[in-house]
Amino acid sequence: MATIFNFRMMEPAPLEHLDVLRAKSGVEVDREIYSFKDKGGRDIGLRFDLTVGMTRYVCTRRELRPPIKLASLSGAWRYDEPQHARYRWFRQWDLEIFGPPSIGADAEVIEATHRLFKSLGIGFTVQVGDREAVQSYISQVLGVKDAERAAEMMRALDKVQKKTAGELKAEYVAKGFSAEEVEKLLGFGAIRGDPGKVLSRLGEEGVQAPALVALADNLSGRGIQTEFNLSIVRGLDYYTGVVFEVLDTSHPDLGSLAGGGRYDLLPGSFGRTDLSATGAAGGMERIALSLSDGSEGRSVPVYVAVTGKGGQKAGHRVLNELRDKGVPAESALSDRALAKQLEDARRMGVKWVVILGDKEELSGMITLRNMVDRTEEVVPLSTALRRIKQA
Amino acid sequence: MATIFNFRMMEPAPLEHLDVLRAKSGVEVDREIYSFKDKGGRDIGLRFDLTVGMTRYVCTRRELRPPIKLASLSGAWRYDEPQHARYRWFRQWDLEIFGPPSIGADAEVIEATHRLFKSLGIGFTVQVGDREAVQSYISQVLGVKDAERAAEMMRALDKVQKKTAGELKAEYVAKGFSAEEVEKLLGFGAIRGDPGKVLSRLGEEGVQAPALVALADNLSGRGIQTEFNLSIVRGLDYYTGVVFEVLDTSHPDLGSLAGGGRYDLLPGSFGRTDLSATGAAGGMERIALSLSDGSEGRSVPVYVAVTGKGGQKAGHRVLNELRDKGVPAESALSDRALAKQLEDARRMGVKWVVILGDKEELSGMITLRNMVDRTEEVVPLSTALRRIKQA
Repeated sequence: MATIFNFRMMEPAPLEHLDVLRAKSGVEVDREIYSFKDKGGRDIGLRFDLTVGMTRYVCTRRELRPPIKLASLSGAWRYDEPQHARYRWFRQWDLEIFGPPSIGADAEVIEATHRLFKSLGIGFTVQVGDREAVQSYISQVLGVKDAERAAEMMRALDKVQKKTAGELKAEYVAKGFSAEEVEKLLGFGAIRGDPGKVLSRLGEEGVQAPALVALADNLSGRGIQTEFNLSIVRGLDYYTGVVFEVLDTSHPDLGSLAGGGRYDLLPGSFGRTDLSATGAAGGMERIALSLSDGSEGRSVPVYVAVTGKGGQKAGHRVLNELRDKGVPAESALSDRALAKQLEDARRMGVKWVVILGDKEELSGMITLRNMVDRTEEVVPLSTALRRIKQA
Repeated sequence: MATIFNFRMMEPAPLEHLDVLRAKSGVEVDREIYSFKDKGGRDIGLRFDLTVGMTRYVCTRRELRPPIKLASLSGAWRYDEPQHARYRWFRQWDLEIFGPPSIGADAEVIEATHRLFKSLGIGFTVQVGDREAVQSYISQVLGVKDAERAAEMMRALDKVQKKTAGELKAEYVAKGFSAEEVEKLLGFGAIRGDPGKVLSRLGEEGVQAPALVALADNLSGRGIQTEFNLSIVRGLDYYTGVVFEVLDTSHPDLGSLAGGGRYDLLPGSFGRTDLSATGAAGGMERIALSLSDGSEGRSVPVYVAVTGKGGQKAGHRVLNELRDKGVPAESALSDRALAKQLEDARRMGVKWVVILGDKEELSGMITLRNMVDRTEEVVPLSTALRRIKQA
């Protein structure tokens, strides 16, 4: 997917100075950074995601011409209690675009993400939110101007998918918000669905959402279907504009399959206020599971079985010819009875066995056994190669 | 290469308990292990190669049926002073075969390594040694039975490529060896060349080398050319049988491109005395350099340039069609004059530009510009796709 959208693959540095990692992490992730002092006494951390390292890389390379489109597929570490499907070392995919702010970049990331999941055949929806629309609602409509209180309200929206409205109301009234304010906020967070409908609801609420208007237009031109969902706000200290999550429609309880959005402040923390950034990332575990369905039966297609001195000599020749043509092939590494070799081939799930003995060595023919329908024929090697390549 | 020889790809754990890493490392590497205490107070190290993790993996998986052929292509860490082409984090390729001892396994590893370098078009030779032949010479011919003194003599052979005979003689006489012993040893280490000749020289010296005899036969069956070289001994505490190195014939000063051999003791340190092991590994820097020669000019083949409202709409449609067909394609992420878009395409080294404006949107045709010979034609998209795919 990265290739057809012309993202260049890279791998960010696995170790970073701890303060570089902390530029993104926030309090929660900070606890999970796998950090230590190295032998030179420096505070070092293992990368907890790929974004920080990719951003640092781009920010220190002034010769790169924006827009800079990078992708990565690598592991990251979190010092977390290992639990089901949550490991201390896990793999992520990651797409990032750095350059001037452009809704086209957000749309490009969303489209590439959408195509990735579509190609996997997983049932999913892409839910898109907008931090600026939420901020506009909180400050203009609810009239909450205090930054700390506004951030607290945004945090409430982030909890909508984990807590009931009643729980959230009780929690926020205890924090000193009025019941009416909380109700209105939750009502706003419940606005979701078709982009056109969401945009007209936002208009009725008196909320400015120019990014979502432009994004809806751009995505519709690309033929990409998403839902707009005002309760999607994501990492509070980090994202600044359009944000999105990919939800598994058949397992909504499993949380998001991937997420992303615009994070224009991070490049500035590396001295590049001229760059804005938007991207997406997701875990590989679910993708690997989905892909492994089709490939469980992966096996080498050809086994070369030999018997006798002549067979061994011919065996090497046939293996070379197969491998020269790029056909994966396997054979025994030490002397083994023919019956045992056929048993090995069956266990490996091999479809074709080439059998070579003294007779075959003399005649220049080989015996080709199809292990699936259990037929055998004596043919020249070239014919056997054709059969194998066709199947 | 791993695939056509039916090695399964894996990635070993990046972190190991320090004592696991020390099972292989020896004193020299021990200093270079990037180690630390984790937040739980455990002594942890970053892997310094791939072999240890692969061996631990195999040794703890009793359900795997030997021979177990594994390959990996991953990074490793050494806490070393960074210097030219020597980094704290570097990438390695690695091939390993675990199973009953078999010279066929050694030959398979050597053949796969040989094919790897042959496919890269690097001028190289594979130099094969045998620890047992060297031990036999030292104990039977030189009569050195003391294990410590024998190991000291083997260390001398390991230095043949870095020091002159005079230096080595002085060094070893100072250590209490007789001048005659050292001269004989260096003469033995100078035995190298065509396998047949080396084997007959070994016979004259009264040295038993059954592994080399079987290996020469097996490799000649496979059609693989190597040189036998009795000064190749490699990591002293680790290797136990056939060892080899790949030397760059045009840059012999750069040291070995790759190396490997039999290390039957390591599985035992993980409780599996039933398994023997042989493998090879090499750094990716040189391979990456060699490969990058041909791919410096890597670029996306198609740029979709748009102008006017109609062009933008058509642009999304054409991009989708290209990407649906797996053709990497790029376009501007925000409004940009046509001349600027063509400039971007030229800078990216794009060969084909599809130009879409209001006229094209209406006619259903597109303008296809070949950036190499600067020709343009107005054709249906399907024709353009055919041109692009042919080129």
